[in-house]
Amino acid sequence: MRLPLRSCIFFRSFIAQKQTADAQKRGLSGAGMRLVQFRHSGEGDCVRVGVEQSDGQGVVDLKAFDPSMPSTVRELLQLGDKGLEFAQRALASGQCVVDRANIQLLPPILAPEKVVCVGMNYRDHCLEQNAPIPKEPIIFSKFPSALTGPYDDIILPPESQEVDWEVELAFVIGRRGKHIKEEDALSYVAGFTVANDVSARDWQMRRNGKQWLLSKTFDSFCPLGPALVTADAVNDPHNLGIRCLVNGDTVQSSNTSQMIFKTAALIAWVSQIVTLTPGDVFLTGTPPGVGVFRNPPIFLKKGDVVECQIDQLGSIINKVI
Amino acid sequence: MRLPLRSCIFFRSFIAQKQTADAQKRGLSGAGMRLVQFRHSGEGDCVRVGVEQSDGQGVVDLKAFDPSMPSTVRELLQLGDKGLEFAQRALASGQCVVDRANIQLLPPILAPEKVVCVGMNYRDHCLEQNAPIPKEPIIFSKFPSALTGPYDDIILPPESQEVDWEVELAFVIGRRGKHIKEEDALSYVAGFTVANDVSARDWQMRRNGKQWLLSKTFDSFCPLGPALVTADAVNDPHNLGIRCLVNGDTVQSSNTSQMIFKTAALIAWVSQIVTLTPGDVFLTGTPPGVGVFRNPPIFLKKGDVVECQIDQLGSIINKVI
Repeated sequence: MRLPLRSCIFFRSFIAQKQTADAQKRGLSGAGMRLVQFRHSGEGDCVRVGVEQSDGQGVVDLKAFDPSMPSTVRELLQLGDKGLEFAQRALASGQCVVDRANIQLLPPILAPEKVVCVGMNYRDHCLEQNAPIPKEPIIFSKFPSALTGPYDDIILPPESQEVDWEVELAFVIGRRGKHIKEEDALSYVAGFTVANDVSARDWQMRRNGKQWLLSKTFDSFCPLGPALVTADAVNDPHNLGIRCLVNGDTVQSSNTSQMIFKTAALIAWVSQIVTLTPGDVFLTGTPPGVGVFRNPPIFLKKGDVVECQIDQLGSIINKVI
Repeated sequence: MRLPLRSCIFFRSFIAQKQTADAQKRGLSGAGMRLVQFRHSGEGDCVRVGVEQSDGQGVVDLKAFDPSMPSTVRELLQLGDKGLEFAQRALASGQCVVDRANIQLLPPILAPEKVVCVGMNYRDHCLEQNAPIPKEPIIFSKFPSALTGPYDDIILPPESQEVDWEVELAFVIGRRGKHIKEEDALSYVAGFTVANDVSARDWQMRRNGKQWLLSKTFDSFCPLGPALVTADAVNDPHNLGIRCLVNGDTVQSSNTSQMIFKTAALIAWVSQIVTLTPGDVFLTGTPPGVGVFRNPPIFLKKGDVVECQIDQLGSIINKVI
């Protein structure tokens, strides 16, 4: 947050209340967990791993519970089942709980080896632009430096005049694999989260030899979070309401059932090319309603607030500065 | 190396002799260093940082010299001048020298945040394909998982029938920066090295919605090395002979003076979009002579040996399996 201190505290308290209400509505069950990364206010760059309490009130600080635990979710995933069991024990202890108002949430994954993105992956988004339904996934990427926290600011770069929103279901890889079969692929998913695949349309459509990378990878162009919701906590990731609101107006509203290539198919596809590794983030494409295909087109401007929501996963809310 | 043990030892001894001869010809002067990453034979996954002795005979093992030193070149670069001074001291000591025959060289950078690549960046390569000279750099990327060592194998994937070579000058970022001015940009370069931007032309030209990422990022599609030659050891990086040989035949032969956007311009361009960070690798484009534009086209097949050479930097030699 780069707001003045007073608005910052107000914004954080607003977010904390909203999260509590959301969590109470969701009512997580079973062994499912919501893993977060955070920083204690005023503690510099020190990253911590936390598990959200199910009532949405507090976050259990794993490293406070056991100083030998990893400091990042990526390292926790590298421990495999052992890491998740540990997080489960820490959560069950009810100890080492920090108040949401005293922490800043970071993206639930930092410094992944890959941020894999999928283009044109919603039927209704293809229809909106009169584009054919792709026969194979269209894969591009962002650099990990684009990642930013669930309530951090989206920085409007002076180099683009056409910055647009794209709410997307994201998933994170939990174990290493190559040539993964589609029928085995879901066992490679650690969990799901919400992303905004912020895009500079001028760069995407008219510059850089039409290679999308630069348009998608400006610093802060990948808000992610608020939590990595473990796969066992999501009933059906391909039947979730997915929405984007700009300044409170709903601009995108669809369902992840519209995805053309679903989680397992994407893992099988990409892993024929590259070895996947714990922490790799996939952004699975956006539904219709982006700004560039409106008539006239609408782009983000300073002061706008973009909220991306996915059922069961939560909301990320980012101010444009 | 995935050769049987006997050919592996023979190949390594051949490589070691070649490096010694190359180093004697080069005659490094001044404070310049050749940083490498290596693994002691039979020591599993443990990565070490080394500095090549100027006669090309041995490699000083930094961690053996001082166990508190970083285990990777990326971490060494993160220490800034202090890291390089330390390496200089270790080299000057003449202690903790390991024999080249007993180590496996790794790429001089592992797990960078970014592998930034530039397309169509040699005048003579544009002419070869009747393409206009780009007015702005064309930037794409590989995932870090594509990196492989200077003498490791290039693995021919069954998913492509058109795997091609591209010798390229690579440079590595030494300090963090955003919106770097072209006139300051060279001070952000840690050093230079040799890359092969191996490319699956069928995927690049006819698949993945013409986004180049997948075609460029198959596992093992980025041989890099043999050393990161610090910037102060390279007289003029834009006046170096650059060659690729396949099975001993010269297939590419040009000079880095043919680059359209040179090191400083590329750093200024990319850093207007993303924050650069120590260890980021740039591949600066390839000269003419790639297989796909030959008549008839030629592609790599099992058993081929590809050697990429750049004056002052050295050679990487990779067998296709």
